Amino acid sequence: MNGAVVLTSGGLDSSVLLHQVVREYGAENVRALSFFYGQRHAIELECAEAQAEAAGVETHVVLDIGFMGALLAPGSTLLAAGDAVPDLKDLSEADLAQPPTYVPNRNMMLLSMAAAYAEAQGCSRVYYGAQAQDEYGYWDCTETFLERINGVLALNRKTPVQVLAPLVHHSKADNVRLGVELGIDFAQTWTCYRGLGNDTVAVSERRGCGTCPSCVERIQAFKAVGVTDPLDPARS
Amino acid sequence: MNGAVVLTSGGLDSSVLLHQVVREYGAENVRALSFFYGQRHAIELECAEAQAEAAGVETHVVLDIGFMGALLAPGSTLLAAGDAVPDLKDLSEADLAQPPTYVPNRNMMLLSMAAAYAEAQGCSRVYYGAQAQDEYGYWDCTETFLERINGVLALNRKTPVQVLAPLVHHSKADNVRLGVELGIDFAQTWTCYRGLGNDTVAVSERRGCGTCPSCVERIQAFKAVGVTDPLDPARS
Repeated sequence: MNGAVVLTSGGLDSSVLLHQVVREYGAENVRALSFFYGQRHAIELECAEAQAEAAGVETHVVLDIGFMGALLAPGSTLLAAGDAVPDLKDLSEADLAQPPTYVPNRNMMLLSMAAAYAEAQGCSRVYYGAQAQDEYGYWDCTETFLERINGVLALNRKTPVQVLAPLVHHSKADNVRLGVELGIDFAQTWTCYRGLGNDTVAVSERRGCGTCPSCVERIQAFKAVGVTDPLDPARS
Repeated sequence: MNGAVVLTSGGLDSSVLLHQVVREYGAENVRALSFFYGQRHAIELECAEAQAEAAGVETHVVLDIGFMGALLAPGSTLLAAGDAVPDLKDLSEADLAQPPTYVPNRNMMLLSMAAAYAEAQGCSRVYYGAQAQDEYGYWDCTETFLERINGVLALNRKTPVQVLAPLVHHSKADNVRLGVELGIDFAQTWTCYRGLGNDTVAVSERRGCGTCPSCVERIQAFKAVGVTDPLDPARS
């Protein structure tokens, strides 16, 4: 068992992670894995593919688990069928502890599928891009969550797979910094929860909404680092 | 949060479990959940539906996660696309510790989806039918496995779901005995790993192969209890 599977959503954090893992393992030992689960911002998957290509990763698998949208999370706003995504300023304290964009048990499902894929492919490690700020809103982005997931997987008698989240102590700004160092094209990452609908939009024309919780966090991170975000809607 | 989701495969153990949970919760508070993951013995799903109906459970959801067949477990013999299922007598010691019918990380995937479904439906409990003999062959059927799964789910800040396997200390014979007590129609349960292909077979004509590991265990269980198994191929 060697090689690594990287959960690649096309977001900023996982894009940075993919390039970092490729630097460590070599592109030929890395597989990128994405999920389509009915998310509103399907443009992420285009970005995931662009990042895999940029990193030289030949195997990029997209699992269609779209049934989750209708069945498992009818109330989540992260799914296209749900309510509109609220602005960060409109969220209550309770919302911040578990935002309306929460999808029930999402990361346990995704990591268990990723671990199964890794095991089937003979890869001993799964990387995912949880970062420090996520844990305020999502119980399934914390270090304790990850330790317990690994506690389950460690029971596998033949081919235990380990899940690693090396960016878990990084702020979004740390990831922007690391991304600059790794030469990532940030125009080919997508963060905005509101998506761009079903339209095809040229990379140079893409902008986030600037006001959803995810955009606000991203904009602050780029400002902290002093780098221009190509997706910032305040850019001309 | 109240109510229960029962993982209902259409096999003997989960059929017994479904009826037992219905006796405890009342049929109106129980949802049956089945998965189609490309398994060879899809007749199980017909049995699951028949058992849900017999138990008076109105909500029976079948999730099609057939992508697992092609992607995650190309080598598993439990999937229609895999190799032929071997006889129990042909299995080595290593095979018994992890049979060729093993699907990578299967139960973690299924339980995480079931927990997500339960959470979305406002049910606080998921029941699944692991029983004592399973644990020799499958790392993901043990009590320790279950404890650790629950350790993950307990981190959920708003709506923790608990997974219960009340039959985990039961032998298959114990489940046959309990099934008799609950009045289960064993002709409407399916155990044989080899399935019946794609043919529709009348319930009264259905028989297991009698020699795969799963059939051998079932036949021994019915003999131990002194009850006739309607699916025993030795029956005329």
